Amino acid sequence: MLKPEILDPQGQAVLTALPRLGVAGISGVRQGKRFELDLDGEADAEALARIEHLASTLLANPVIEDYVVRVEAD
Amino acid sequence: MLKPEILDPQGQAVLTALPRLGVAGISGVRQGKRFELDLDGEADAEALARIEHLASTLLANPVIEDYVVRVEAD
Repeated sequence: MLKPEILDPQGQAVLTALPRLGVAGISGVRQGKRFELDLDGEADAEALARIEHLASTLLANPVIEDYVVRVEAD
Repeated sequence: MLKPEILDPQGQAVLTALPRLGVAGISGVRQGKRFELDLDGEADAEALARIEHLASTLLANPVIEDYVVRVEAD
């Protein structure tokens, strides 16, 4: 997701559309990317280190984006 | 996220780039959107119904995308 201090025009566009859609009670919207990776084998420390590297070099731009790596079973 | 049966060119592009980056052990990559919504008040049943409606009408395209609504504390 974009870092909090970075302007998020897509999130802003959704936020401003909400009243026209009659949706109230939402004070902020941020949009980002989500990647699902199918891992061969266990999500052990070595695999997670590999994915952290991938996230911080290819999948996210650490200058403007924060990212979280989550392990989810199938 | 795109439904499993829908071709995901962005995910495919990441997957084919992995060997060049020396990243092994990943057999699938899918890319999608993630929205973070700041809710005014409790995430009660009524608020979640409102967000489900928003997700299925504005934030996702139910024809080609699946979505999950998750409540996360600040």
